[in-house]
Amino acid sequence: MDKLRQFDKELADLKSRLLTMAEIAAKMTDHVITALAQRDESIARDVDGLELDVNRMQLEIDEIVLALLATHQPVAADLRFLLAATRIGGELERVGDLAINISQNVRTLLQQPPVKPLIDIPKMARTARDMLDKAVQALVTSDPLMAQTVIVMDDAVDDLCDRVRDDLLEFMKKNSDMIVESSLALVLVARHLERIADHATNIAENVILVSQGKDVRHPNVHRPG
Amino acid sequence: MDKLRQFDKELADLKSRLLTMAEIAAKMTDHVITALAQRDESIARDVDGLELDVNRMQLEIDEIVLALLATHQPVAADLRFLLAATRIGGELERVGDLAINISQNVRTLLQQPPVKPLIDIPKMARTARDMLDKAVQALVTSDPLMAQTVIVMDDAVDDLCDRVRDDLLEFMKKNSDMIVESSLALVLVARHLERIADHATNIAENVILVSQGKDVRHPNVHRPG
Repeated sequence: MDKLRQFDKELADLKSRLLTMAEIAAKMTDHVITALAQRDESIARDVDGLELDVNRMQLEIDEIVLALLATHQPVAADLRFLLAATRIGGELERVGDLAINISQNVRTLLQQPPVKPLIDIPKMARTARDMLDKAVQALVTSDPLMAQTVIVMDDAVDDLCDRVRDDLLEFMKKNSDMIVESSLALVLVARHLERIADHATNIAENVILVSQGKDVRHPNVHRPG
Repeated sequence: MDKLRQFDKELADLKSRLLTMAEIAAKMTDHVITALAQRDESIARDVDGLELDVNRMQLEIDEIVLALLATHQPVAADLRFLLAATRIGGELERVGDLAINISQNVRTLLQQPPVKPLIDIPKMARTARDMLDKAVQALVTSDPLMAQTVIVMDDAVDDLCDRVRDDLLEFMKKNSDMIVESSLALVLVARHLERIADHATNIAENVILVSQGKDVRHPNVHRPG
């Protein structure tokens, strides 16, 4: 196989690894929120193992990027893609960390009676997970329009997070001491989900950067030219 | 100037930008915690402007990395350093985001009477800031031992964060509704500081990766060989 076709094959392999890594991170998010919604800790138990997979994949992706840069010395779009791949690996690794943080809060929550029916938190989780799926699909299919829809969805998650905090604050003010710890854990779960959505947004911004050569990461920064 | 000396000069410039970016991010952390400790919102006011600087510097650093990779096609330690530089830019950008998050909580806190004397939170802030300084010094002087001290310091910040949460939980259970909102804001400030320390730790891990070619980011991942 010539060197160029070899490079294309290795790029395709790298994309497929990013896709798998994103699927595992999304699955971790699913498990911890399902464990919370169904009040069944056993569902959350396998996230620790999945986090090790996510961490291992980040290291592998960085090694592949390093090897591809050293061997093929790509330029232009391919070079931008490889730099984005190492950043996206970092974003997905943090999604895994956040799922672990949520699982710790879920453990606290399941030791106490339920505070109130959960509506907004599962909605946040579904949206954040959907954003992750779409961001990585956009990466693999080089689809900046799909990436743009992810960025738009982030506002809805931010609004839900604020609402969860405000509702729980009211709830904590009105109710007994008993629910303070659980309410705090729920506020933190909402914050972690909001950050997962932020990471999906960062991935989407990297996709737009790669496919259009246009940096949308900080819209308020004035760029010369 | 020959191409090699030009490359060295551009690497030195990149290091100096990372140092400046870290100083701004550390300054933002200082300002928001001083504003909280002295109950003076005006001190926190300039963090919004500083965040724009941090965001701009991240974009500039990524452009420089891209240009250096495309022009000089470095290998080995230089290539590893450039990949680490783009990751470290991302870590510092998030420190800036977290300082902004803290400033929002400080605004909430200054609208209410003080909850209790703050001891652990300023201590966390000092340690996190010290970690940031040391991590970037270690980067610039290629000092893996200094980077190692940063990683060790992270445990102290994690412990302080747990203590702040436990203290405030007890406090919220015993006291009136009035302090619920402030206490929650303080818990979130502690969490944000804990994450700033995590980003300093990530920077330190990248320094060790560059200087020793040894990846210490996920100690629990088994590596072949």
